[in-house]
Amino acid sequence: DNQQRIKEAVDLAVSRSDIIITTGGLGPTQDDITKQCVADALGKELVFDEQSAQRIRDYFKRLGRDFPDTNYNQAYLPQDCTVLKNEYGTAPGCICEGDGIIAIMLPGPPRELIPMWNNGVRPFLQSLSDSVIFSKNIRAFSMSESKADILISNIKTPANVTIAPYAKTSEILIRVTAKAQSIEQAKKDVEPVCAEIIELLGDGVYGVDCDSLAQRCVNLLIEQGKTVATAESCTGGLIAKMITDIKGASSVFELGEVCYSCRQKNERLSVANEIIEKYGVVSQEVAEAMALGVRKNASADFSIATTGIAGPDGGTEELPVGTVWVALAHKDGVYSHKLSINRETADREYVRNYSALFALDMLRRILENKKQSRVK
Amino acid sequence: DNQQRIKEAVDLAVSRSDIIITTGGLGPTQDDITKQCVADALGKELVFDEQSAQRIRDYFKRLGRDFPDTNYNQAYLPQDCTVLKNEYGTAPGCICEGDGIIAIMLPGPPRELIPMWNNGVRPFLQSLSDSVIFSKNIRAFSMSESKADILISNIKTPANVTIAPYAKTSEILIRVTAKAQSIEQAKKDVEPVCAEIIELLGDGVYGVDCDSLAQRCVNLLIEQGKTVATAESCTGGLIAKMITDIKGASSVFELGEVCYSCRQKNERLSVANEIIEKYGVVSQEVAEAMALGVRKNASADFSIATTGIAGPDGGTEELPVGTVWVALAHKDGVYSHKLSINRETADREYVRNYSALFALDMLRRILENKKQSRVK
Repeated sequence: DNQQRIKEAVDLAVSRSDIIITTGGLGPTQDDITKQCVADALGKELVFDEQSAQRIRDYFKRLGRDFPDTNYNQAYLPQDCTVLKNEYGTAPGCICEGDGIIAIMLPGPPRELIPMWNNGVRPFLQSLSDSVIFSKNIRAFSMSESKADILISNIKTPANVTIAPYAKTSEILIRVTAKAQSIEQAKKDVEPVCAEIIELLGDGVYGVDCDSLAQRCVNLLIEQGKTVATAESCTGGLIAKMITDIKGASSVFELGEVCYSCRQKNERLSVANEIIEKYGVVSQEVAEAMALGVRKNASADFSIATTGIAGPDGGTEELPVGTVWVALAHKDGVYSHKLSINRETADREYVRNYSALFALDMLRRILENKKQSRVK
Repeated sequence: DNQQRIKEAVDLAVSRSDIIITTGGLGPTQDDITKQCVADALGKELVFDEQSAQRIRDYFKRLGRDFPDTNYNQAYLPQDCTVLKNEYGTAPGCICEGDGIIAIMLPGPPRELIPMWNNGVRPFLQSLSDSVIFSKNIRAFSMSESKADILISNIKTPANVTIAPYAKTSEILIRVTAKAQSIEQAKKDVEPVCAEIIELLGDGVYGVDCDSLAQRCVNLLIEQGKTVATAESCTGGLIAKMITDIKGASSVFELGEVCYSCRQKNERLSVANEIIEKYGVVSQEVAEAMALGVRKNASADFSIATTGIAGPDGGTEELPVGTVWVALAHKDGVYSHKLSINRETADREYVRNYSALFALDMLRRILENKKQSRVK
């Protein structure tokens, strides 16, 4: 809302960029001064645009509201600009060229901004270029950025294809992007590079253009007409939450039980008290009994279970924080892995999140007929 | 890693700021050029600092690793600077004054940066000021920023106290900050303003300096020696996850059941099939039966339950996406609220999140002996 600061920001942008995009400050009130500041920088006057004024009048009429005179301010736009219609509000945006610079001014509210971007700005920017960009996103669970970097460092790509790895929590995302004359050509250029990366990364890759491990699991279960149930102790509902985050999960997921106490593991999941006493509640035996118990309760094809120490308290020398048993039961039996999540940054949230993702990855691997991962 | 761009950024910062803080670029390799660029801008030479060199040698010795000669680069620091020791890596940071500007250069890796900030930079910055800052954070569920703005707009504060509202998803955070000569004085100045805001916002306030509704509920349950259980359909484990996000939740939470299908609502929660058939699965009757069922299963003091349509599919004219029944059962009975979460931006994630928080807020209110909120 400060004229001098907006001017400095615009001047700086003009000094180093060909295209400047602003958002906000197009409203009817006194502190909406973006248009004036940008027009000044480009040596333009603001002029009254009757068509925009009419659209603002119509907008108020549609809402059945009175039309405040101050709203006419919004119809003043830089001379010779291209007006961007606002379908969801009153302030028009605009594209304004001057002094070899293109300024694109957009309203602030996302529900006005996003359609204007998609309908007006994106096609305009596309028209400035004679090429298109296309990306594919490869995701792998539990692989460090540096390991992925080493694996893919020797891949030879055509000059128009780039590979960019991004480290996410417990995951890596590798984006392969091609710039070409047509979308068909870009897709074709991306394909062999993707195939080579997937080959190099191996079974850790859980999906291409798939947003999450849970999404991949739900897709596979739907394809195969199978169901899954969950029995959670240390993850406390997180796995069920991840599965039901996915729309359509109801066709593959009926039941999840969060049994935080020994009593509930016994009562709800039929884990024998003798097993808990003999092996301890964080043990292979209890994890596997939990998985078997919930699979039976739900009459599900698969089940996954977790029991462990998420911290920050409750760790012992024998079972430090980050010790988690994860089990999977299926029609022919049950198996499990012990996780020792002891990296320095492994707080409660990290332990729970990694354990939940590991359980989903076990499910993904059995559904894909892949071998189970070695535990680190 | 680009000398010209670093120079431009530093020059720009120098033109408008008294203190410049940089992170990263202090390493031993050729592209670590931050120190040189900043020293140039301040008219300083880099000189060899024997103490820093010795610390780097010692660091490698401690790790039992060879000492690469390039690491001596890290011992070159701007003349007359204050060296900031690095306890967790090799690159020392520094505070350098010149031309009326203070430049503070810090290493990039968070585990090196954060201790250096806390031990070296924070006390230095504090020494430049003769006052301290103290804040309190007031949180309220389900209040819009504009409504909070109106409520608090007439509060008169002393000149050294500021009130800043922040909109969070489904919540508002109001931060009250005082700047004073001493921490005691700042705390004293914040107190009456906080009290006035809490009075104005009413029962919606769930906590002061409390991170989340779940944290508040767990605190209250622990204080009162009570337990809670959850029965979730549309929230799919999210409420259990929120409760078990909190360390120490195991003393108040034993059991959560995610019953996504009608069959499981019947089998695991004893919701009569006739009730489901008569009233529909998204109904007051089913929500309340779920709450009663899980309370009994868990022998808990309280239970909360949700059933609704999270979307994007599954809505009907009568029960559109965003329709959710939330129930709470306690020793004397059960009650429920119907939510109609139909704002434009209410996607699956929003509906689930709002419903889960609403359920926790019902629990918070009964534990605080507050009246239940009116549903919007």
